[in-house]
Amino acid sequence: MAEPLNVALLGLGVVGSGVARALLEKGEVYARRLGRPLRLRRVLVRQPHKPRPVALDPSLLTADPDQVLEDDQVHIVVELMGGERPAVDYIRRALERGRYVVTANKEVMAKHGPELLSLAHRRGVDVLYEASVGAGIPIVSPLKRDLSANDIKGLRAIINGTTNYILTRMAREGLDFATALAQAQELGYAEPDPSNDVEGHDAVYKLAILASLAFHTQVPPEAIYREGITRLQARDFRYASELGYCIKLLAIARRRPADGEAVEARVHPALLPQEELLAKVDGVLNAIEVEGDLLGRVVFQGPGAGAAPTASAVIADILDAAQALSHGRPPAPWQGMVHLPLRPMDDLECRYYIRMEVADRPGVLAQIARCFGDHQVSIASVIQKESNAAAQTAEIVIMTHAAREADVRATMAEVERLPVVCAVGNFLRVED
Amino acid sequence: MAEPLNVALLGLGVVGSGVARALLEKGEVYARRLGRPLRLRRVLVRQPHKPRPVALDPSLLTADPDQVLEDDQVHIVVELMGGERPAVDYIRRALERGRYVVTANKEVMAKHGPELLSLAHRRGVDVLYEASVGAGIPIVSPLKRDLSANDIKGLRAIINGTTNYILTRMAREGLDFATALAQAQELGYAEPDPSNDVEGHDAVYKLAILASLAFHTQVPPEAIYREGITRLQARDFRYASELGYCIKLLAIARRRPADGEAVEARVHPALLPQEELLAKVDGVLNAIEVEGDLLGRVVFQGPGAGAAPTASAVIADILDAAQALSHGRPPAPWQGMVHLPLRPMDDLECRYYIRMEVADRPGVLAQIARCFGDHQVSIASVIQKESNAAAQTAEIVIMTHAAREADVRATMAEVERLPVVCAVGNFLRVED
Repeated sequence: MAEPLNVALLGLGVVGSGVARALLEKGEVYARRLGRPLRLRRVLVRQPHKPRPVALDPSLLTADPDQVLEDDQVHIVVELMGGERPAVDYIRRALERGRYVVTANKEVMAKHGPELLSLAHRRGVDVLYEASVGAGIPIVSPLKRDLSANDIKGLRAIINGTTNYILTRMAREGLDFATALAQAQELGYAEPDPSNDVEGHDAVYKLAILASLAFHTQVPPEAIYREGITRLQARDFRYASELGYCIKLLAIARRRPADGEAVEARVHPALLPQEELLAKVDGVLNAIEVEGDLLGRVVFQGPGAGAAPTASAVIADILDAAQALSHGRPPAPWQGMVHLPLRPMDDLECRYYIRMEVADRPGVLAQIARCFGDHQVSIASVIQKESNAAAQTAEIVIMTHAAREADVRATMAEVERLPVVCAVGNFLRVED
Repeated sequence: MAEPLNVALLGLGVVGSGVARALLEKGEVYARRLGRPLRLRRVLVRQPHKPRPVALDPSLLTADPDQVLEDDQVHIVVELMGGERPAVDYIRRALERGRYVVTANKEVMAKHGPELLSLAHRRGVDVLYEASVGAGIPIVSPLKRDLSANDIKGLRAIINGTTNYILTRMAREGLDFATALAQAQELGYAEPDPSNDVEGHDAVYKLAILASLAFHTQVPPEAIYREGITRLQARDFRYASELGYCIKLLAIARRRPADGEAVEARVHPALLPQEELLAKVDGVLNAIEVEGDLLGRVVFQGPGAGAAPTASAVIADILDAAQALSHGRPPAPWQGMVHLPLRPMDDLECRYYIRMEVADRPGVLAQIARCFGDHQVSIASVIQKESNAAAQTAEIVIMTHAAREADVRATMAEVERLPVVCAVGNFLRVED
């Protein structure tokens, strides 16, 4: 058997330990598949002397990044630290020295992906990042290879397990957001500070990666419209269900050929018809639906987090890099990015769900309906609900026909100023 | 831009036309992605002068296989004729001459895959066959690459759209098999002679391919247990639904580490809990669920047939072969097949659903229950249904606890001999 290939890990947290454990426990299987062994040569950690759940030779551990990044014997650098810095700097240094890099870092790939891929290409190596989206669910590699005959029209994804778990509990048990969140935290599905998940930042990073890949362009995360799930109330789930919908935090990207190929990219909660595949994805599962011009719609679904599922993707990338190194395969040609404009949210056209609290007396609906009409927003259906006798208010849910977001926002601003309207309770886009 | 790569098609039926059309219409896109153009050089057809739905230069068409297979300018041979012969002979000849081969042929790959892959390896080329299972749904490539860090524990798949369409109609509308089949035939979802689909042959070929890939072994199609859907009745769907199940034609393969790594491979209708992902796959859709030791369960879902979806997979394989040819990448090492024994169906252990028609009088259930007990088959629940007053018969549905198939079959043989039992109406395995 040929000489071993040397792997360095940056980071030995949950995912890093999962990767180290799999490399140790399944090393023989991988060596057989690859035709040569993979050897763990260096592991960068903050505290080399801390006890670890995985039994590693202590001499492998170091807190000094130079010992890892300057080591000429290392072939593949695997970055599993998370966070933007210093991860991106270490990846850059590894690429500059001609190392293959494997990373699970969504923030780094969302913000710096094109630069790093271009640098890798110049150095004749590659950056592999399957684990950065959907953990072990294959999606980066299918977009790069399996769907390459298609022009991708769009994709819709549930790519944050924490929020999908919370929404599932709210829908099934009528919990309010705070209770569902607290339970997710108790179970370890949500962080003590949950904002990265519940405000949609995590989903935005992942969508930036997927949209850039799908459309061969660069979709920077800051250009993606983002709305979290904190404004959702138990009643929204009840109304949605009555109307035949569920509510999911969706990451959506679409190309608009009619609109100068502009790219639409947004993360927000949306009403989704109950019979759609994505509507049936519950709990911490992730799912990504991709639509290609030839293929139609295909859905990839599975666990979107966890040490072992993430290790599955990281090691597949390590094996891929190892194959490339062993056989001298040049990396796939770096597909020059095309520049596609991003479509402003104001131009979005879809149906809208609007819930408002109004005075419970005659003529109110007429006033509201007039506002909608004045802005060319056509009402598809109205449900009046839950009169509150004490406060003399009622709740109205309006579903619109397809309308421009700018017009709907203008309508709502005007509706909110009506004396008979106490408050616009929520406003959700409908994906159908 | 570099010299064109020459592609030859064998067959210009529905799929062949789809591939030819995509190569013509999207040629520029593919050339840009690949860095060199793909050129259609030869197309083998039975009748070169027949009018075609796709506008091809008539000089490309030939009915003479030698003109295609002996052409030294052809780099990639794409076999889309279907059927075992002469397809397998042409593929062999193309490989012998050092051509890359792309095929959508499930029968050929199921029966001759290992031999052809080994031949390709010796000639320094490859056979790519993503389209042979699930049309454009990526599954062959994920098993080869994306899931390669995993030991695959098993897979369960709905890989025949025709039967899934029929079962969906039977479940939703209470149709009987013959009516649902007739409607599928009217819509073009089923062939005039539907036996290849409804008897499970098609699913067996696909399972042979998937199981061989997943377990790095050879699972010959004739070793796979096969049962079609023709014995299902509308009432089976009603009872299944009452019990919380749906009925799907499943292709199942599992490794049994406790059993000397024996492989279990079978195609049959099965009761599946309604909340399972696969239970929600309706109509002509296909879905493949794969379970890996690291990854857990991942599901790939999409259209499992059709000219464009199949072309999506065929062209992805052509592009992959073209990359390999352009960059001189040697094919991935041919992973020597390991021999794993196949587990006999008699050893299967699962729960069973058994429907029988019995005399409607006291003491009948006691006699039946005694037969079950005598064979160590434990009854989980009994539903007595639909007394037929005129015939003085009743229908009984028994769900067993997990039991060995051999014991269940022996029980049924004895039950059928009881004078109080008119007939065993159906017998289905439960997948949970």
